[in-house]
Amino acid sequence: MHEESPKFMNSKLALLNSSYCQKLRQWLPVCSWLRGYTRKDFGSDCFAGLITAILLVPQGVAYAMLAGLPAQVGLYASILPPLVYVLTGTSRTMSVGPVSIAAIMIAAALSAPDVARLGDPLGSAIILAAESGLILLLMALFRMGTLVNFISHPVLTGFTSGAALLIVGSQIPALLGLPKLHCGFDWSCYTNSIAGFNPLTTLIGIASLISLVLFDKPLNRLLTGLGLKQTWITGLCKTGPICVVVIGSVYVMLSGHQHQLATVGAIPAGLPALKLPPTHFENWRLLFPSAFFIALIAYVESVAIAKVTARFRKQRIDPNQELIALSGSNLMAALSGGMPVAGGFSRTMVNFNAGAVTQIAMLIAALLLAVVVTLFTDGFAHILKTSLAAIILVAITPLIKLRSILQVWQFDKADAIAEISTFGGVLLFGIEQGLGIGIAVTLLGYLWRTSQPHIAVVGEIPETQHFRNIKRHQVETWPNLLLIRVDENMTFANAGYLEDFVDCEIEQYPYLQHVVLIFTSVSYIDSTALETLENLIDSLAKNRITLHFAEVKGPVMDRLQATLLLSKLQPGQVFFTTHEAAQALSQREPVKPEIE
Amino acid sequence: MHEESPKFMNSKLALLNSSYCQKLRQWLPVCSWLRGYTRKDFGSDCFAGLITAILLVPQGVAYAMLAGLPAQVGLYASILPPLVYVLTGTSRTMSVGPVSIAAIMIAAALSAPDVARLGDPLGSAIILAAESGLILLLMALFRMGTLVNFISHPVLTGFTSGAALLIVGSQIPALLGLPKLHCGFDWSCYTNSIAGFNPLTTLIGIASLISLVLFDKPLNRLLTGLGLKQTWITGLCKTGPICVVVIGSVYVMLSGHQHQLATVGAIPAGLPALKLPPTHFENWRLLFPSAFFIALIAYVESVAIAKVTARFRKQRIDPNQELIALSGSNLMAALSGGMPVAGGFSRTMVNFNAGAVTQIAMLIAALLLAVVVTLFTDGFAHILKTSLAAIILVAITPLIKLRSILQVWQFDKADAIAEISTFGGVLLFGIEQGLGIGIAVTLLGYLWRTSQPHIAVVGEIPETQHFRNIKRHQVETWPNLLLIRVDENMTFANAGYLEDFVDCEIEQYPYLQHVVLIFTSVSYIDSTALETLENLIDSLAKNRITLHFAEVKGPVMDRLQATLLLSKLQPGQVFFTTHEAAQALSQREPVKPEIE
Repeated sequence: MHEESPKFMNSKLALLNSSYCQKLRQWLPVCSWLRGYTRKDFGSDCFAGLITAILLVPQGVAYAMLAGLPAQVGLYASILPPLVYVLTGTSRTMSVGPVSIAAIMIAAALSAPDVARLGDPLGSAIILAAESGLILLLMALFRMGTLVNFISHPVLTGFTSGAALLIVGSQIPALLGLPKLHCGFDWSCYTNSIAGFNPLTTLIGIASLISLVLFDKPLNRLLTGLGLKQTWITGLCKTGPICVVVIGSVYVMLSGHQHQLATVGAIPAGLPALKLPPTHFENWRLLFPSAFFIALIAYVESVAIAKVTARFRKQRIDPNQELIALSGSNLMAALSGGMPVAGGFSRTMVNFNAGAVTQIAMLIAALLLAVVVTLFTDGFAHILKTSLAAIILVAITPLIKLRSILQVWQFDKADAIAEISTFGGVLLFGIEQGLGIGIAVTLLGYLWRTSQPHIAVVGEIPETQHFRNIKRHQVETWPNLLLIRVDENMTFANAGYLEDFVDCEIEQYPYLQHVVLIFTSVSYIDSTALETLENLIDSLAKNRITLHFAEVKGPVMDRLQATLLLSKLQPGQVFFTTHEAAQALSQREPVKPEIE
Repeated sequence: MHEESPKFMNSKLALLNSSYCQKLRQWLPVCSWLRGYTRKDFGSDCFAGLITAILLVPQGVAYAMLAGLPAQVGLYASILPPLVYVLTGTSRTMSVGPVSIAAIMIAAALSAPDVARLGDPLGSAIILAAESGLILLLMALFRMGTLVNFISHPVLTGFTSGAALLIVGSQIPALLGLPKLHCGFDWSCYTNSIAGFNPLTTLIGIASLISLVLFDKPLNRLLTGLGLKQTWITGLCKTGPICVVVIGSVYVMLSGHQHQLATVGAIPAGLPALKLPPTHFENWRLLFPSAFFIALIAYVESVAIAKVTARFRKQRIDPNQELIALSGSNLMAALSGGMPVAGGFSRTMVNFNAGAVTQIAMLIAALLLAVVVTLFTDGFAHILKTSLAAIILVAITPLIKLRSILQVWQFDKADAIAEISTFGGVLLFGIEQGLGIGIAVTLLGYLWRTSQPHIAVVGEIPETQHFRNIKRHQVETWPNLLLIRVDENMTFANAGYLEDFVDCEIEQYPYLQHVVLIFTSVSYIDSTALETLENLIDSLAKNRITLHFAEVKGPVMDRLQATLLLSKLQPGQVFFTTHEAAQALSQREPVKPEIE
């Protein structure tokens, strides 16, 4: 089956437009799009890069806070890691950096008792980034990109909704200026935290929330009404977060911290120093499971986003190269004191809608962020946590898609169950556990289904050479001939089912002489199914019934030729078409079949 | 798909020959075959029952010893449990009772440190039987019979070979009259056991071994030469074990135990008293995992054997009813102080070849065993353990099929890897662990494979309405039309792959206007695939390409009608045949496609 796989196509393409940096282009896709890069492209990229940077500054700080890390970690993660992706990524418009879901997963990992006991959350975050990078690298080496398919869309949606709901919960205290709640059932603790409630913070928080909402669709509609250029509209609408942050900080500066409003606090100026992550084996061991799930989700989300944007422009994503690119980005995040990164949905969409043509846009955004962390770090000291909470809440709420459960339920109960159990699992047992539960449920349902393949007894539609299910169409059948169409690959999962099916069919055809298995849809037969077929031949022979095959595909035939099956089949034959089989085997004079 | 399931057929049959004990017949299949039972049948059943009983006496004792239990346990397990199966089983010739693989699994379970600490191995064995019975009952209630399909043949073979090898190892000491070896790396222990080596035992053991081998094929050939009736030949050849046992015991009796040869020792006379199994929760908890695997293997082996024999006579096995029957048999084993039971291969084949027509044969065998345990128990005291070891070795060795690994390897690497890891797992990590490893490896390989479905770009074979893979046949294609045949159900497992495939195909058709997905082999679409199709429609539209479907099956169409997909598909259409699609969409004037 491999000659039709995209990998093959890919290499075939490479062959077609072979050039000096052909091999290089595979590892550094930048080569393929840098050629033919025009000044016009550069113009759009500059604009898109600027817009994206304006979003990334507050977002980076906010997601660092969400992950329970110092503000600069989010900024560092938005500078060098994206540059690695610029060189190695196959998506031209995806923006890599800190993302909300990964952030909450990091927060969960860091707050786990064993990990918390280690102290040094920053060190742990860096280890998480390093481990995720290595895990993604391993997946790339073993070409295991496809395995993430097993996070089905319903599970992913359920997971995202659950995680988003957790994020909302985690941001309420910051928004209202309450001290962080870890009260459990200790009511006095709650009352204390309520006592710590800060009206001014709440006021600013709500205000920021409202203005952010207004900055989005309403402003967009207004400007469209004024007939502004679309890219400018997108640009202006995305300045919401930065405005909220700036206004907030300015107010704090003027009021001189007298209202003890919670702020981000001073952060070190200048670019991050590159240094290797901490190497305490114990910490690596403890963090591994979290790193694994973070890597999985980072990859799944990034590829999903990359594919959407790429297909809009008829470009292509190489899933395996993406593994390498994301691995590199996360390793770079670990080296430059950042947090685990991925392709973010909001940041990518901003970049894309602002007209980014290539990764040059991200290059420019990264440079701007570098400038910010070198020159304007003083400003960060005054950033209000409540504004950041508002930014997170506005960014996160759209991810909570409970209605989707209903839609899925109407179409596929099993999928809906998987989605619900993931969602519930995340809320009840925690983020990683929820994801694990979801995957397990999906796989069980899948195995259950594949163990009941679609198998049909077919007959010939008179005056045609078409054979259809006798249950659905008026077709001609013959008492001495049974035509069975197997509609799925034959594997251990359904071989037993086929056996049962044939056993119970032959019972009803007392005059049966020939059984023909039609392999139109069979492109793979494993050794369990092979044994089953051999048993079938023997036992049918015992009843003086001959087994035949029809429409066996090329690759299947090749494999069967390597076995004794075809010789065992004698006197049974392999027919090219079902029609030929019917011609050769059917008795034209009908015999009234009796049922025992 | 369910209207084609055997269950349905089954009920349809029941409807056809509806009679007063129709419902009853479902639960007590005995009804269906007892009507029309002739004196002639009874004759053959009596003979078969006698032959089987002659085999079962030594085998029962031997397998009890193999499981590390008192001799009578094996006999008790051969009396009442088979009777339950006689009434409830759907196989007419399968012989249920103690089997070698289950026996070694019991031995492994009982010798596990935690369980051994409990003492009372007999009580534990009874709990194992009770738990297996209950587990099988649960599987029956939830109709989970199909799930055991996930023990593929290679895994089963690897498991059996591994277990058989362990059995051989376990019987060597008994055969040579060494004390049981649990020495590990303590060499003095080995030397001691060698000191305990008993030349006379060894002599008798080897002698029994040789005579058992001679009793099998050589004797068979000899008698055939003499032109004896086949059933008689089978009968005589199966007397080997009993002869070996009897001769051995007689010698012991005459020599009056002076050579201190290891014997079975006295066993209580009379039938077992029915009583409930012990109810210490701790023991039940500890034994559960073992019980689970024993139940699984018992069911898989029984159904496999039942199917083989049933199909020889054009009879049918209802897998779910088998669950009930085996569950009942094991519960009865627990009540009557026996060990877990299953359908044994050797015993069933003896019964079948001796000409058994119905379960009456097993009824008679059970009655004969009942007579034996009531009247002749004194004789058992003198049975030599070495003779029993010889019987086990001869019975077990054929189960070691190492060559099969090579055969499987030639046909399917993945299956071979599963078989090897199961075999190795059993030897290195233990019986249950090995089985678990095997199942895990199979599932991983399966998921890996299904994530790369067979997808082909097809074209029309000139002057026909047949469409074939453009890679394999000389076919007509059109620059504005891409025909893609999806050869598997569309699920989360392969939706991403389809996406990649289409993405990389459209890249190569610069003049593309229409993409047609041909669903000949698609009988199921899950919600992940549904979303993928919706994304495809959008993104293709972005490139001014229209997506169409062709040959959508009835059930799939029904499901799609419940969604928005078909309305989203507009202006794309759903064509009845690929030919119609090509007719409607293809530009006849060929345009030379350039590759970018």
